[in-house]
Amino acid sequence: MERNFLLTIEYDGTGFFGWQRQPGVPTIQGTLEDALSAVLGKKIQVNGTSRTDAGVHAYGQRASFSGEFGIPTDKLALAVNNRIAGAMKGKMATGPIRIKEVREMPADFHARFNAKGKTYLYKIHNSKEPDLFLRNYCYAIREPLDEEAMRLAASRIEGTHDFQCFQASGGTERETTVRTIYKTDVLRRGEDISIRVTGDGFLYNMVRIITGTLVETGLGKRTPMSMDSVIRGRDRQNAGHTAPPQGLYLMEVYYELQEVPGYDG
Amino acid sequence: MERNFLLTIEYDGTGFFGWQRQPGVPTIQGTLEDALSAVLGKKIQVNGTSRTDAGVHAYGQRASFSGEFGIPTDKLALAVNNRIAGAMKGKMATGPIRIKEVREMPADFHARFNAKGKTYLYKIHNSKEPDLFLRNYCYAIREPLDEEAMRLAASRIEGTHDFQCFQASGGTERETTVRTIYKTDVLRRGEDISIRVTGDGFLYNMVRIITGTLVETGLGKRTPMSMDSVIRGRDRQNAGHTAPPQGLYLMEVYYELQEVPGYDG
Repeated sequence: MERNFLLTIEYDGTGFFGWQRQPGVPTIQGTLEDALSAVLGKKIQVNGTSRTDAGVHAYGQRASFSGEFGIPTDKLALAVNNRIAGAMKGKMATGPIRIKEVREMPADFHARFNAKGKTYLYKIHNSKEPDLFLRNYCYAIREPLDEEAMRLAASRIEGTHDFQCFQASGGTERETTVRTIYKTDVLRRGEDISIRVTGDGFLYNMVRIITGTLVETGLGKRTPMSMDSVIRGRDRQNAGHTAPPQGLYLMEVYYELQEVPGYDG
Repeated sequence: MERNFLLTIEYDGTGFFGWQRQPGVPTIQGTLEDALSAVLGKKIQVNGTSRTDAGVHAYGQRASFSGEFGIPTDKLALAVNNRIAGAMKGKMATGPIRIKEVREMPADFHARFNAKGKTYLYKIHNSKEPDLFLRNYCYAIREPLDEEAMRLAASRIEGTHDFQCFQASGGTERETTVRTIYKTDVLRRGEDISIRVTGDGFLYNMVRIITGTLVETGLGKRTPMSMDSVIRGRDRQNAGHTAPPQGLYLMEVYYELQEVPGYDG
């Protein structure tokens, strides 16, 4: 009987050419599929929720795949993780990609089409001296950022809007650029600033362009209120720069609207 | 006129085959020398204080080199750092190796021979769930470690001893295995445990073998007092396992005895 599995995956995107399988270069999807295929003894193709770009990380990417397998759900993660980590016999090791959870789902479930919302996290290190050990894990900004201004600007994004202003030109042509942002948050802890954005869907590079716009606000180059006219203008030229990929983390994917932070039914 | 420079360098050892230049593979020394040579317009060879192994990091490695150069000291670091980071014109970027300081020294100064002491830091992440993003930056131990026992065991190492027990067999044959450890420290901050060891010199893999022995003490497999007999026995077999390289950081090098933590004259 055909079974359908949903994986929750975390990964360090450093050194990968993004999620999507491409010939001849290491990608998250390719590495994961190769390990799954080896463990399950047949060619596996997974459907990921989000096609993250090169250098982007994930704490909670999701991917589904189906087929006839005898393996118990709880054995699959360990076998795949050890394979990716190149673990030695009897030893556990940590590789750059890790399956955190495996759930068996109804036959018609699809990791992308069934998603009701996602949360992205963007990490900024706001320090005069950039930390070399964080260079692949955050956006280093030397000048002091006003996180209050950034929080206020971010809150202007919440709601249902046409977000064409935050769509990179390289993105796929989609029917609509209207999205609902349920919740935004900007938090400072010492030199670390984290931006969280939860929405029903995101345009290409949307969170990175939002972050670039918020950074310019935090530097005093834009006012928090000017975010309204950026959105209204529906022109990419009015928004800020595209923040670099290494600060971006896919945090969580929601399959029930009730789970989505900020969703008020 | 010949000038002599002392560099203070930090680096992320992930992806490098250690400090020492080797043909055909990326090393810290090789990368640094190539960048210095390009910036200074002549072939540069540096003398590093410590030949760190593959995967080992540094906050304060030192290296010296001499020659006839016109470049001002303060321009050298930026030019080399940008070159290593592959920075774009007018932009600053952070690469895996960074010169933190350049000092001009007397002609007879040598970064290794003049060193009076060094501090190494070893980072352990003591959590049930290893952090994938820290896999190249610490030693992950899942079982709870008793840092009090580790601290007590570490303090038994302080003083002048024959440390043959902590020398890996692959090391260079040296005249003597007697070293002075000035100070040890074991600190816990949440799930992070850091071990600091300051000494006048270190045998091959010494800090990693000390760490392995301390970890076994923290797990209750050894008593803190048994460290005395390990040292007295002068046999590598009595000491613990060699902790992995990615937790090790060369913290600081001292050229004046008065600067060495724990040195009491």
